[in-house]
Amino acid sequence: MNDNYLGLIEDSLSKYLSSSEDKGDLFKAINYSLFSCGKRVRPLLLLKFCEICGGNIYKALPFACAIEMIHTYSLIHDDLPCMDDDNFRRGKPSCHIKFGEDIALLAGDALLNLSYEILFLDETIKNLGLEKIVKCAKILSSCSGIKGMVGGQEIDLKSENRKISLDLLKEMYLKKTAMLIMAAAQIGCIIADAEPLQVQASKNYAKFIGLAFQIKDDILDVTSCFEVTGKSSSDISNGKSTYVSLMGLDKAKSEVKRLTNLAISELNIFDKDCDWLKNFALSLEKRIK
Amino acid sequence: MNDNYLGLIEDSLSKYLSSSEDKGDLFKAINYSLFSCGKRVRPLLLLKFCEICGGNIYKALPFACAIEMIHTYSLIHDDLPCMDDDNFRRGKPSCHIKFGEDIALLAGDALLNLSYEILFLDETIKNLGLEKIVKCAKILSSCSGIKGMVGGQEIDLKSENRKISLDLLKEMYLKKTAMLIMAAAQIGCIIADAEPLQVQASKNYAKFIGLAFQIKDDILDVTSCFEVTGKSSSDISNGKSTYVSLMGLDKAKSEVKRLTNLAISELNIFDKDCDWLKNFALSLEKRIK
Repeated sequence: MNDNYLGLIEDSLSKYLSSSEDKGDLFKAINYSLFSCGKRVRPLLLLKFCEICGGNIYKALPFACAIEMIHTYSLIHDDLPCMDDDNFRRGKPSCHIKFGEDIALLAGDALLNLSYEILFLDETIKNLGLEKIVKCAKILSSCSGIKGMVGGQEIDLKSENRKISLDLLKEMYLKKTAMLIMAAAQIGCIIADAEPLQVQASKNYAKFIGLAFQIKDDILDVTSCFEVTGKSSSDISNGKSTYVSLMGLDKAKSEVKRLTNLAISELNIFDKDCDWLKNFALSLEKRIK
Repeated sequence: MNDNYLGLIEDSLSKYLSSSEDKGDLFKAINYSLFSCGKRVRPLLLLKFCEICGGNIYKALPFACAIEMIHTYSLIHDDLPCMDDDNFRRGKPSCHIKFGEDIALLAGDALLNLSYEILFLDETIKNLGLEKIVKCAKILSSCSGIKGMVGGQEIDLKSENRKISLDLLKEMYLKKTAMLIMAAAQIGCIIADAEPLQVQASKNYAKFIGLAFQIKDDILDVTSCFEVTGKSSSDISNGKSTYVSLMGLDKAKSEVKRLTNLAISELNIFDKDCDWLKNFALSLEKRIK
């Protein structure tokens, strides 16, 4: 089922991209970044929540693709020299290394805009109806902007080389990572005409796994580095606050466990089999890289 | 009337911006760029077309603001070192000079996203209704993206330091500048429930003045530079093709005149007084800077 969903997402992204007339460097850069072995976590979650609420997942594909486009644009811009200055992404040269900073900047802009363009295509309107499109676009745009993902990126910049409070760190993880996942979960439910309590449960599940994911990242930064270099966490925290540097390794591990259990308990409200979502939450907790 | 409209646009932009909780650097950067003495050409045209089609201009304000936000984001990103590397914009330090490249990049991203957020607010939905919002959002997103403004910026990058054909130059002017103006004009008419032929006429008017504006820019680059330095156009074209470098000064001047007349002739289809739009087209033709 999962493979099938992944195939649908890839095909759908390809379709939206190939409809563009432009086949120059900008098109190539978008294509390169959008099809670079991403795990498609957000669109998969969107389709899964749509499925367990009894919805038609084909109708959910435009929003699934829109969210993946927004995620991809944020990675392209994050990798730029003026931001994280990362030369590699998923084992391949970053977009700006491959195509130049100017094209990478435009590729991000184009992807963010494209994520909205595909929501207003005649086919999307026919399948979803105006009310659902606007309701879901409202959630998507609000989670992606200054109150959501971009706001989280701002906190991330602030936290470079200086200590921030645990509250601000949590706000950063919530905004930068969790909110786009929360948008995916809610939109999946809404497209399936789910009950408000189900929409809320999906939002909570997504929030908990989003936060757990980030704290697990902090843990892996320390444990995998410790194994390799023998350095302690304070040596490698690089001045930047993490959950581990603020709370210690043990508290971080128990927090990931706590959040994962909270996420799984939110699934009780759904009638259908939620094994995939349960296992997905557990796989994030147990991951070793 | 014009002053009144400008006041409405400024107030409306302020309102949308102040609703953001965030008052950090990102907010300040957005505020700085959005209120930096821009002429508000696009939102003014949107309101004017709404007016002459008998519409309620208050209902048109969300889209007027959205278009100004998109225009502003494009300027912030265009000024970045990896693009045009401009340290000044409208006589003030560019956004990235004032706030740093990282914040300027995010400010552009946030503004593009915000331009969509404000279209799905409860107030916008109440005033415009779902059908108009989606219809206008479709035009806006398609004119702003890879088939529109961003596509034009890509051609602009390609044309750095090399000669391009007149056709490609015209395509660049159409996409990079005219299409967002065309979106403004059409959306103004649609919000006023204008006839399809009026929407088309407004689109044509906007296309002609957009192209005329760019060619006039090429003329001013030569004539104002010639007055000051005594250099001829070929000395200052800097390797980049312009309408003047490709067609000569006389042909460029007559083309601006031709396009301006075409724009004005499109206004005949409207019943109401179009003096402002007529004078606006003429003022672009006659401008000296």
